[in-house]
Parts: sequence; structure tokens; C-alpha cells
Amino acid sequence: MKILVLNPNTTGSMTAKIAECARDFASDGVEIIARNPSCGPVSIEGYFDQARAAAGIIDEVRRAIDEGVDGIVLACFDDPSLDACRAMATCPVIGICEAAVHTATMLGTSFSVVTTLPRSVPIIQDLVLKYGAERRCRRVRASGIPVLDLETSADARQRILDQILSAKREDGCESIVLGCAGMADLARWLGEESGLPVIDGVVAGVKIMEALIGTGLKTSKVGAYAAPRPK
Amino acid sequence: MKILVLNPNTTGSMTAKIAECARDFASDGVEIIARNPSCGPVSIEGYFDQARAAAGIIDEVRRAIDEGVDGIVLACFDDPSLDACRAMATCPVIGICEAAVHTATMLGTSFSVVTTLPRSVPIIQDLVLKYGAERRCRRVRASGIPVLDLETSADARQRILDQILSAKREDGCESIVLGCAGMADLARWLGEESGLPVIDGVVAGVKIMEALIGTGLKTSKVGAYAAPRPK
Amino acid sequence: MKILVLNPNTTGSMTAKIAECARDFASDGVEIIARNPSCGPVSIEGYFDQARAAAGIIDEVRRAIDEGVDGIVLACFDDPSLDACRAMATCPVIGICEAAVHTATMLGTSFSVVTTLPRSVPIIQDLVLKYGAERRCRRVRASGIPVLDLETSADARQRILDQILSAKREDGCESIVLGCAGMADLARWLGEESGLPVIDGVVAGVKIMEALIGTGLKTSKVGAYAAPRPK
Amino acid sequence: MKILVLNPNTTGSMTAKIAECARDFASDGVEIIARNPSCGPVSIEGYFDQARAAAGIIDEVRRAIDEGVDGIVLACFDDPSLDACRAMATCPVIGICEAAVHTATMLGTSFSVVTTLPRSVPIIQDLVLKYGAERRCRRVRASGIPVLDLETSADARQRILDQILSAKREDGCESIVLGCAGMADLARWLGEESGLPVIDGVVAGVKIMEALIGTGLKTSKVGAYAAPRPK
Amino acid sequence: MKILVLNPNTTGSMTAKIAECARDFASDGVEIIARNPSCGPVSIEGYFDQARAAAGIIDEVRRAIDEGVDGIVLACFDDPSLDACRAMATCPVIGICEAAVHTATMLGTSFSVVTTLPRSVPIIQDLVLKYGAERRCRRVRASGIPVLDLETSADARQRILDQILSAKREDGCESIVLGCAGMADLARWLGEESGLPVIDGVVAGVKIMEALIGTGLKTSKVGAYAAPRPK
Amino acid sequence: MKILVLNPNTTGSMTAKIAECARDFASDGVEIIARNPSCGPVSIEGYFDQARAAAGIIDEVRRAIDEGVDGIVLACFDDPSLDACRAMATCPVIGICEAAVHTATMLGTSFSVVTTLPRSVPIIQDLVLKYGAERRCRRVRASGIPVLDLETSADARQRILDQILSAKREDGCESIVLGCAGMADLARWLGEESGLPVIDGVVAGVKIMEALIGTGLKTSKVGAYAAPRPK
Repeated sequence: MKILVLNPNTTGSMTAKIAECARDFASDGVEIIARNPSCGPVSIEGYFDQARAAAGIIDEVRRAIDEGVDGIVLACFDDPSLDACRAMATCPVIGICEAAVHTATMLGTSFSVVTTLPRSVPIIQDLVLKYGAERRCRRVRASGIPVLDLETSADARQRILDQILSAKREDGCESIVLGCAGMADLARWLGEESGLPVIDGVVAGVKIMEALIGTGLKTSKVGAYAAPRPK
Repeated sequence: MKILVLNPNTTGSMTAKIAECARDFASDGVEIIARNPSCGPVSIEGYFDQARAAAGIIDEVRRAIDEGVDGIVLACFDDPSLDACRAMATCPVIGICEAAVHTATMLGTSFSVVTTLPRSVPIIQDLVLKYGAERRCRRVRASGIPVLDLETSADARQRILDQILSAKREDGCESIVLGCAGMADLARWLGEESGLPVIDGVVAGVKIMEALIGTGLKTSKVGAYAAPRPK
Repeated sequence: MKILVLNPNTTGSMTAKIAECARDFASDGVEIIARNPSCGPVSIEGYFDQARAAAGIIDEVRRAIDEGVDGIVLACFDDPSLDACRAMATCPVIGICEAAVHTATMLGTSFSVVTTLPRSVPIIQDLVLKYGAERRCRRVRASGIPVLDLETSADARQRILDQILSAKREDGCESIVLGCAGMADLARWLGEESGLPVIDGVVAGVKIMEALIGTGLKTSKVGAYAAPRPK
Repeated sequence: MKILVLNPNTTGSMTAKIAECARDFASDGVEIIARNPSCGPVSIEGYFDQARAAAGIIDEVRRAIDEGVDGIVLACFDDPSLDACRAMATCPVIGICEAAVHTATMLGTSFSVVTTLPRSVPIIQDLVLKYGAERRCRRVRASGIPVLDLETSADARQRILDQILSAKREDGCESIVLGCAGMADLARWLGEESGLPVIDGVVAGVKIMEALIGTGLKTSKVGAYAAPRPK
Repeated sequence: MKILVLNPNTTGSMTAKIAECARDFASDGVEIIARNPSCGPVSIEGYFDQARAAAGIIDEVRRAIDEGVDGIVLACFDDPSLDACRAMATCPVIGICEAAVHTATMLGTSFSVVTTLPRSVPIIQDLVLKYGAERRCRRVRASGIPVLDLETSADARQRILDQILSAKREDGCESIVLGCAGMADLARWLGEESGLPVIDGVVAGVKIMEALIGTGLKTSKVGAYAAPRPK
Repeated sequence: MKILVLNPNTTGSMTAKIAECARDFASDGVEIIARNPSCGPVSIEGYFDQARAAAGIIDEVRRAIDEGVDGIVLACFDDPSLDACRAMATCPVIGICEAAVHTATMLGTSFSVVTTLPRSVPIIQDLVLKYGAERRCRRVRASGIPVLDLETSADARQRILDQILSAKREDGCESIVLGCAGMADLARWLGEESGLPVIDGVVAGVKIMEALIGTGLKTSKVGAYAAPRPK
């Protein structure tokens, strides 16, 4: 079983971190192919970066389909171009926001999201609506930490924990969803410190992708995800 | 990894069929424990049967927890007493309606459900709302076939296929969810005949449960699923 | 006119208090039959207790139907097994959460709920959604007082009043719904102290049940509440 | 106990019919005061008639408040100026659409409405949303019969029955709400013929008003229904 | 192009202020006819005033239609009797709440409303729902300033600014909608002080009405806005 | 006043048609700049084409911003990359689906959409939800005509009319929204034939853009549409 874990930004160190988390949790016999596009934004922070990343995502997804992957995980919490990827593929495709949100709803009746910058809050709110969890999501919180500072900022993990503890106390949420692929390596520590399930989308994405592949089901080719018309 | 697949009705032949489907799809190293309560209704068709099944479900879940299972799949499409089971357990617990509905939303933008009797339609509509898929669910259709007749009726599978083909033609849905654990063995054939992804909750439930266990996350014990107070 | 007011827990002193409130408000000629099951949890606090209470509820409802009651009021704010009872009965059946929520929407444009423990908050939020009042409900507040402590705690009524005054000040709500049958005797005092309509579900339940019986209408036997199939 | 049943149009024969239905179902000791404004539209069919009826409604409500009525039922299915009346009164005020819709949700999980003209359909859909029953209402059907023709048309009741039977067959609804005060006298017959609970708002309104008065609760004067400012 | 800007209250000085704002922003060749009814409430603060204003609104709208206006803007933030006016007219009719809310959704992903008295908050919340912006509206805030005090109170504009700054800080909103026609002259200053788009409904209403007229489209006469039946 | 009307596909003849419709309706003194990207898909039919068009849209929007346009209309009914464009610009930006949907809600209480291919139906349903019109939209209908065939197919306009007449008869809608920029030239004829307001997004987009520019308001730079971070 081969799974593409696609980091849609061009920062290789972040791809490496995502790959490590993915492989730590992948089942025996699952090959994780972790990649990022060669051109596009170095991080995806808001709608503009999403649009700029689209071409690179399409290229990497096409390459992976040609190589015969069994499933594709889009490893950016904005789930950019997710629907386009589904239209391209017959294998299952999921986004890490989608995977994390569904996972959260199966472990508690409510959750809050802790993400990076304020501009991502409305984007995530719309994704939560798209995935049908608007009644379960107590709040989307911005930590104020840019994506790439997650790797370099000395106090990043403490500030994220502070947001989680505030969420636990003020939002009445039963679990936490981490709102950036760059937080994947912090999930375990944050869970231990907070006493709440802390869900990282990369791990959730890989495991649910294994599940989807395991069912033998494919992306529906009737309707929105019909194969693109040649043009 | 040990997973309890609990058929909440008392019909052993149905438990056997569910067990077979579950084992066909379980990953290597996963032990499927398939059981049903010793007392309660022979099938669950509507709210009254759900209430009658509650005591047996609790007993079987408690027994499995004592035995140290890693996850519990409730194998009846009404997801009866699901929240109670979550409150009892620290391991993940899911229902097959929940698993099938989430799976459907990851493979297409819309689905219809084909279930057994008309009385189950409003129950499933409420579950679809609970799982946040009300905007994705085109229609819940009753085939008119009682649960236990699925095993004995000569034309059951054809009547279910007819409903699926009507759903494809009239509802504009992109996939199908089978609305009864007793239809698990028909999913593959129905998918081939209809050209749509046909999702059986037993298989979806087992695979997503493997995924949840694989993340290492547990049911939140803060809030709705806090451990029951001793009384 | 005979109305069963069923306390679904097994605490007789609570049944007595509920009976007294019900009789205080019942119309002339209405016989209030107040009962509780002989086995089951002593109080209903969360999903697990609901599931444990199901068998006792069914037994008492069946007995009352056999005796020919004209209506049934389920006197626990979680409205446990309400739909199952409706399927059993031809007479009207209501829950006290349902009755209180509808009453609140007819006396103001918004309300907050004050209940017992935090674990009941998500349960009540789901009931509020079920009854279509999600846009009217400002907040569900937990006082932190367990059900049975309502009878024994010296400061219970003051703590509930404090929550009501906070709701008035912070939630912008126009009325208050008491989220536990055990608060029935406090409603008048709380209303006088807070200057808001304070709605107790036991009284609302009895009065609305009298109204339903008075219309001559019965529970629909087409669809979800069709008579249970013999099994 | 004195209840004003206010027919907001100026057709006295319709007021008489409404009065008769109200009195048939009123409890012992309840005085039904049935009135209509002296000026305004002869029937209320759409938004314009509602606006024209506003002044007359206000006048009659003020008169009744001065006379000390205990509750007010607005006997037009559009519930015209209901919120204004609530702001004027301290006693409870309800509309017959509101009463009928709540009643329907307590007797079945879904309903369809059968009303008069197509122009009323969107109005009723908005009221159903206001009362939180949008997920329970399967369809609002227009019979094509103007309000005043209900009294004179030879085939009116048959055409309404036809709509009800279509609703039962096509909408999957479990009960029927009659969408005009002028249909009050037909409810019993329609229920017998259709085998569904058929809910007339006049009767539902009177009985639920008795219930509200019986609780001793008043309309909240905090917020939307605060007493009008003198001007 | 002639546009009626109808102030539905009877305060001439407020009509003059509204007229001035409207003319400041009207395109060349657009004639603004600003009027108010001769009888009715001096300001519209809540449901009761709305009902009292209905007759005057109808009269002025009929007069304008007879004069051949091309569009009608209802210049009160409660959009009173808007649907009735649409039924009367073939030309487009809009309310200033409607215009402001739609404008806000095209300039940012979320907004808060700052209005006058607390009693208007639930009214505006219902309008926001009617216009489909309930997921975009972060909060409706009352400044506590009565409508007519907006012209005379020395600190009114500062108190409104304070609410806007609180909204920016606490609500996470991206723009502000002013919730009263009497605030029209403050919009520019408030925008400069707050750094947010501050949307006044009078200006938004006039400009969007010019746009609607410019499309050549008319109010639909099929359904809810069909011409009133003669009676 | 300069408005960019951006056809996001690369078909020049379609750009010319859009330009002609836009100029026919633009006010005096408004300069319409109609362009399309030089590379990208020849038509936008589904999610994949949207993603492929993103780079070209960004380039054209940047160029127009540098040239100092006062507003931008995205002339494809999928509103592709609309949010990204808003983040880039300080001037207002709208999509033609957005403009048409808001226009429809101001002319009637409900509408149906008639678009091109079935794969676009779920996309438009999601946009309708985004714009808050999900309760107003009766149905999104596919005519089965690909975008570019609108210019060449002999029977295209008749097939679209047939869908509109079906919508009028079956959906109970009060107006029609044309779901493709390529239908702009048909709107008037379709309106005359159907007796319903038929709304074309290109015209609605230009007129509402003129309105937004006329208010002097700008896109909010706080939150989702904050200027992209340099990277």
C-alpha cells in the first residue's frame, strides 16, 4: 500500500517533519511517499497562498497517480485544492483538516481548533462547516504563530499549549484539533499536558487513508468528482 | 489489536455474517471479537427495539472493556446506545452509521441511504444530522424489507439494487450507504451493479476503528463521555 | 383524565416532589399518577444512566398504557427513551425538556438553560437542537450540583440563582429553563428573584399534556412511532 | 380564565366558526371571547393583507388587555403581528401556526402543511423556520382555495383531503397541519379519512394557551417583548 | 431614475438627514424622493412600533407607485413591512438592513452590527437569518442609545465608536454594519477611527437599488410577491 | 470608474460576449475592461478546471490592481479563487454567482439555478450555502450543455428555456438564476418567455460592483482578506 502525503508548500524541512510523523504511525507494509511541489509558496497562510499553491498540487497529484499510489493525503490544514485532487484521482484523497475534524467528532462531542494566524480562522470555520462539524466546533483559535516559526520559535509549543488550556477552560470543548501540519510533532506532548485528546491531522489523515484504502472503495466518479473533461 | 464488533440484536446468524465481513476486511494482526447480547430483541427496527436492546449492549460493552479490547464497533445502523458506550469506555467506540456516513462524505459530495423499514427513516435522518451530513444526504430510502428477511428473502438483494438505481437516477447522489448491518455481504455486488461506491457500515466501522486505535487517541473523558458516576 | 408523570430514576423522594408540583398545577379533574421504576439508576446524569434507565421506563410505560392513562409525561430533563415511549403508546407522550423548551419559545425570543452537571450540557444541547430551538437557546449552563444534592445541599438554590443572574447579565436571554426535574419546587422563587420567566419542565409538561389530551389528537402511528413489531 | 381568540380579518362568519371550534374544545370555566377588527382586510392572504391588518389587530389586543384577558390567541395561520402583540401584553400570546407546529412535533417526527393559496407557502415556510420546525416540515402545500371560499366552495373539503392524501403518500409525513383558521371545522373529518393526526391551529392554540395560563408564567418583558416605549 | 427613500417613522429631521446621505451618494441623474408617513410612531424601536408604522408605509408606497418611481428603499433598519411593499410593487424594493448585510458579506467574511436599544437585537438577529448571513454575523450589539437621541446626545457617536472598537477586539469581525438609519452621517468617521469598513444601510440601500434598477429586472410576481388580491 | 470583468477561462469569444453584456448595462462613465488569462483551461467545468485556472486569475488580478481598477468582477459562475482575489485587492471584488444569488433574493423569496453540466451542481450548491441562500434556492438544475456549446449548439437556448419552465412548474421558484457566464446574452429572452425574473450574473455583477464602488467602501483588510504575507 503506497500513500502520497503531499505537503503543498515548498518547505522541505516541513515535509521531512510531516513524513516522520506519518511513518511513525503508518501500519506495517504501508509505504509513505512524502513530497512537496518544487514551486509555490513556502507556507500556506490564507486564501492567496492557497491559490498560488494550486498548480504545484495538481502536478504532484498527477505524478503520484501515474505512479499508482493507493491514496493521497493533502498535508496542509487548509485542505487546498482537495476537491480538484479528488476529481483527478480514482483512489481516495483526503485532507488533514477533514481527517482531524471527523476524528474529533468520534472521540468527543465538541472540539476547538488551535491554528497559526488570525487570517486562517475564517478559512477553517468554512472547512468545519463543509465537513458538517459546525455544531461540534466550539471555537477556532489563532496562536499568532506563523507556520514556519513553528520550527524556529522557542516558545511556540508553550503558546500553543496556552491556547489549548484556555480552550479547555473557556470553550467547554472535549478535545483539541491542531490547525497546522507543522504542529504534528507536538500532539503527544500537548495531549499529556492538557489532559484532552489532541488530534493532529497528519496522523489522522494517514490512518483514515489506510482505512479508506482498506475498504476497497474508490472516489465516486459520478457528479462533482467525475474525471476532468479533456481540454 | 482486539476489536469488539457488537451486534446489538440477539440473532446469532446475523452476528456470524457480520463477523465474516469484519474479518474479511480486518488488517493482519487484528482480532475481531464478534458477539451479540444473550437477551433483547432479535432485530432492531425502530426506537422501541433500541430501548429494549440497551441493557444487553451495556453488559457486552462492560465485558469487553474488562477483557481489554482496544476498540468497539456497534454493528447496528441505528447506532443504539452509542453515547452510553463511549461514556463507559476509554478506548474508541464507533457506530456503523457514523462510520459509513463519514466514509461517504470522503468519497463523494452526496449520498443516499437505503435501509429496511419506513420506521427507520426518521431515525436515520436524525443520525445523519447528528453526524453533520444533513447537507450531503440526498434521501433516506426504505426498501420495505425487515431486517431478518434480508437473510431469507429471495428477492431482497434485487429490491435493494432497485432502490439504489432509483437513488442514482432520481436523487442525484454520488454514493450509496447501506442502512443495515445485515446488508454487509451485498455491498460489493451492489457496487458493481450500480457503478456507485456502495458503503457498508460494518466494513467502514472496522477500518475506521483500526485507524482510531492506530492514532493512539482515546475517548475524551471531559464532558459528555466522562466516566459514569458510581450509583 | 389520567396522566402518568414518570420519574425515570428510582429515587422515591424525588418522585414525591415531582408529584407535588404536578398536582399543584394540574387542572380540576386531572388525576396525576406519579411513579418511578423499581430498578435502575437513582439519578440520571449522562448517557450511561439514560441507557440503564431504559428498561425500567419501558416497564412503567407499558403498565400505564395497560391501565389506560390518557397521557404520559417523562419527568427527567434528558427526555430518556422518549421516542421509544411514543412508539409504545397511542396517547400523547412528552418529555419535560421538550415541554419546557417549547414553552420558553412562546414567552420570549431566547432562553438559557441551567442544569446540574457539566456532562449534561452536550446532551441538553442536542435535545435543544432536536426540538428546533437551537437559534433561541443562548447557553446551557451547569451549576455543578448533582441531581440528588438538589434536595440536600444547603446552598443549591442560591447557586442556581447565581447562574440565572449570570445568564440574564451575560447571555442576553429573555427567560430561563430549569434543566432538571429536581428543581421544580424552586421555579417560583427563582422567577421572583431574577425578574425573568423561569420555566420548570414538570409543570410545563403537565399543562401541555393536558392541552394535547384536550385536542383529542393521538400520537401518529405512521412512521417513526408505528407500533413496535412483535418479536 | 378569559381567552381572546382574535380573528384578524373582518369576516364575521369566519369569526363565528372559529369561536365555535374554540368553545367546543375549551375547558370548563374558560371564557372564549371571539372577535375580529372592525376594519381591515376581509381575509389575510399574503404579506400585504398582513400589513393592512396590523392596525386592527393592535386595537383589539389593546382593548382585550384593558379588559383583563388572561391570554390571547391570534387566529390566522400567518400569525400576523404576533411579536407586536407580545410586546403589548404581559399575559401569554400565541399564534395558531405556532401552536399547530409545536403540537405536530409532539405527535410525530414530521408533518406537512396544507394551506390555501400559493402565495402563502413562502410565508408559512418562514414561520416554520421561526418556530424551529424546518427539519420536521416535509412540505407546505397549497390547495388553491382562497380563504373565504372555504365556507362556500362545494368541493373545498374534498380538495383539501386530496392534498392530505398526496402528502401522506409522497411527502412521507407523519401528521398534517391545516394552514388556515377557516379549516378548523374540517379537522376531525380529515383525520378520520386520512388516518393521520390532522392538527387545526385554532384548537391547538386554545388548548396550549390554557396550558400557558395554567403555568402562571407571563411573557418576558426583558428584551424583544419589553413594553413599548411611550411615543 | 427616481428612487423613493422612505423613512417609515414620522420624524422629519431624520428624514432630512437620510435624504442628505442618500443624495450625497446617488449617481448623476438619480432623483431621490425622501419622505416619511404623516402618521405613525416618531421612531421605530421594536415590534410594536413596526406594527404601528405599517399603515403609513403602505400609504406612502402606494403614492410612490402611482407616481411611477423606479425603486423603493425602506430606510429603517428593522425593514418593517418590506415583504408587503414588494407585493404592492413591480419595481424593486429593498430594506436598508438587507442592503447593508449583503454589502458586508461582499467586503469581509464576517461582521458585527451596532444598533440602538437591546429590544432591537433579537429583531435584527432574525433579519440576519432571513438574509442568510447568520454564519457571517458575529454579534448584534446594542449601544443603549434610543433612535432620536442619536441626533441630540452629545456622546452618541463616541459610544457607538466604543461598541465598534469592542466588536473589533472581542468579536473577531472584519466589518461593521450600523444598525439604524439615524447613524448614516457617522459612517465615514467611524470607519476612519476604527480601521474597519463601516457600512451604513441608507447608502448601501441607495446604491444597490440603483444596481437593481440598472439590471432592468422587476420584483417577481409569481408566489409571495404576487399582486394583492382585490378585497 | 474602471471595472475589470475577468473571464477566468481562455476563450476569447466568450470574453467578447461577456464584455458586450457588461457594456450594455454599465452606467455612463464606467469603463469595462474585459480580459481573460492567456493560459489555463478553455472553459471551467468543475473543481479541476478551477484549480488549473487559479494561476491565470492571480496574474490578471495583479495586473489590474497595478493599473488601478476600481473594482473586479470574476465572470465565471463557479466564482473561482474569489477569496484569493479579495486578499490581493483593496478595491471590491465580487463573483457573478455571488452577485446573481444576492440579486435573486431581493426580487423573490426563492429561485432555482440552471447551469451547464451535472458536475457543476454540487459546486453551485456549496456556493449557494456560502452566500447564505440555501433556504432560498429550490434546486440547481443541469441542462447538460457544456460551456462552449452554449455558443455553437443550435438548441441550447431552447433546452435552457425548457429547464426554466420545468423549474417554474416543479420547483415552486419565484425567479431563475443563470448558472454560467456564457448564458448572459440569453437572459432577456428567457425572462420574456418564462414570465419570471431571469438573472444573469454578468449584468448583476457589473451593477452591484458599481454600487459597491459608489459606497466608497473597500475590502476589509482585517482577517481573511488581509494582504498576503510576502514570501
